[in-house]
Amino acid sequence: MTFKRVIEESSRSKRTNIVVAIDQINYNRRDLIRKSIEILYKVHNHICAVKLSYHLVLPVGLDGAKKIIDAAHDLNLPVIMDCKINDIGYTNRVLAETFFDAGFDAVTANPFVGWEDGLEPVFEAARKTGCGVILLVFMSHKSSLDGYGQNVYVPDAGKLEPQYVLFAKRALEWGADGAVVGATFPEKIREIRSILRDEVPIYSPGIGFQGGDAQLAFSSGAKYIIVGRTVTLADKPEEILLYLKSQLNANLV
Amino acid sequence: MTFKRVIEESSRSKRTNIVVAIDQINYNRRDLIRKSIEILYKVHNHICAVKLSYHLVLPVGLDGAKKIIDAAHDLNLPVIMDCKINDIGYTNRVLAETFFDAGFDAVTANPFVGWEDGLEPVFEAARKTGCGVILLVFMSHKSSLDGYGQNVYVPDAGKLEPQYVLFAKRALEWGADGAVVGATFPEKIREIRSILRDEVPIYSPGIGFQGGDAQLAFSSGAKYIIVGRTVTLADKPEEILLYLKSQLNANLV
Repeated sequence: MTFKRVIEESSRSKRTNIVVAIDQINYNRRDLIRKSIEILYKVHNHICAVKLSYHLVLPVGLDGAKKIIDAAHDLNLPVIMDCKINDIGYTNRVLAETFFDAGFDAVTANPFVGWEDGLEPVFEAARKTGCGVILLVFMSHKSSLDGYGQNVYVPDAGKLEPQYVLFAKRALEWGADGAVVGATFPEKIREIRSILRDEVPIYSPGIGFQGGDAQLAFSSGAKYIIVGRTVTLADKPEEILLYLKSQLNANLV
Repeated sequence: MTFKRVIEESSRSKRTNIVVAIDQINYNRRDLIRKSIEILYKVHNHICAVKLSYHLVLPVGLDGAKKIIDAAHDLNLPVIMDCKINDIGYTNRVLAETFFDAGFDAVTANPFVGWEDGLEPVFEAARKTGCGVILLVFMSHKSSLDGYGQNVYVPDAGKLEPQYVLFAKRALEWGADGAVVGATFPEKIREIRSILRDEVPIYSPGIGFQGGDAQLAFSSGAKYIIVGRTVTLADKPEEILLYLKSQLNANLV
């Protein structure tokens, strides 16, 4: 079963399309692991997957990450490593294999590095293990417009195309399991969805702290809504999720 | 003192411009740390800095990385974290601060993410601590041509410019401590050097295993030559370095 199917079934059976991103800052390693697992136990009924940030995995290390992954798997939640891979093929392959070995079910990667000797080895490693690759197509931060939003000359077509359109086409061509498009740019979600259709599901981060609106991202075409600090820094994360879920479910009808 | 000055002095006093990249694959954590330090003690006389790869730091963790950094510092070698930062500002800041706290003297970052809410926080964190930021301008892998080599429309200029030219200009504008340009594309080194002049030194990886030639990279305008597996996987790494150094020194005259 591909990662695309795994998260789809998780979402369907739990009736939620919310992914929680855990990225708390706290340099005490043991606290970080304990708090992450605590949050998972509080919110697992309301989410369909977990995303771990690079800056969480860095201080807890792979061994610490494994503990969080195990807890998530015990709760039937797939786990995405948000590593935004963007190195040469050799390094990319080792990174992907290391993350999949540690138990992660999918990794994120930047299509800017290209296919040959770039992301091809990442997709190969994913296919071998039944894991997934989610590509960055348009990010949630302001200057996403400078890079993901720039216009690129396409020699074969003899015309300019937006970078994110090229990235969306790569997501289709490479058979990606998902595409990240920031909730802070709902019009880009709409445009990218029209390219990806139902082939490659859109994951939308940037809700709350970054200014994105979950309902708008969803109605614009995102399949999964990623929520981070709005949930993880809340006193009662389950209440925030219940509210978000009710909003999104209402939209589903 | 800025990182640019630190490595320049290291290079001048040791009469070498070679940076060793440590990126061995070995999932036994203790072995990885021990072997890395062993290599440093063998080669420290012939190199001016050390670069640690993400896929070395990942299995050894930050605590393990600190041991390697301490050993390098004991040998008067600055250490670069090759993390290729390319996330949103919030994450980028935490990553940079975490690496600098751990003792790294510089980080690498991808200018594709832009300045505002992108790499600005990384440069801020670096300036506060006297650490450095080295930007990717043209990478050493084949499909570097697809991303770093693509032509981008620049509205202000009303014309197309290569992505790497835009990145080189950002390196100047943002006051980067270095620019990475792959040794596998010596003609790009020449072109990028003509933009950066002596303002931003060029670091050139991709020697040996990836097909790049150290002498050619140097004569094309690279200031620092990064060598990885050619040295770290050799039975006698110091001999490889002596040979490389003699070639490059001959070129210096």
